[in-house]
Amino acid sequence: MYLAKIYVTLKPTVNDPQGLTVKGGLHTLGFDNIQSVRVGKYMEVRLAETNVSKAEQQVREMCDKLLANPVIEDFRFELEEITS
Amino acid sequence: MYLAKIYVTLKPTVNDPQGLTVKGGLHTLGFDNIQSVRVGKYMEVRLAETNVSKAEQQVREMCDKLLANPVIEDFRFELEEITS
Repeated sequence: MYLAKIYVTLKPTVNDPQGLTVKGGLHTLGFDNIQSVRVGKYMEVRLAETNVSKAEQQVREMCDKLLANPVIEDFRFELEEITS
Repeated sequence: MYLAKIYVTLKPTVNDPQGLTVKGGLHTLGFDNIQSVRVGKYMEVRLAETNVSKAEQQVREMCDKLLANPVIEDFRFELEEITS
């Protein structure tokens, strides 16, 4: 079994209104040395798969098809074997 | 300057309807060996701060006050020095 930790982030050129709102909120709370905030998604997917390269291929396919929007988002992931 | 990479996840005992929906979507797409999906948030915050322990303290405070809901969420973060 593998645990995939998937990070989906907006491409650097894409506007991030959610990030700007969070930045504004932090400023309001008194954190005034914040330069920028970018908000992305983090997902943990547990796969019943024993072969690491198959697991990797599947996670890549999941990201391309559903988890990330390739037009505006980038993704990266890590695979961790879990023994339970 | 420091870049904080912040991961906010639901506590293990908290239901994750968004994760269940994503899991359902992946099943529909033919990924049938998925055991579970948990969805969280990933944030990148750039801090104009030169002292690493001050930066750490600030990020912890931000998470406690705004970025995570301590009742239902856990957070962890990494700090990376950026030289630009």
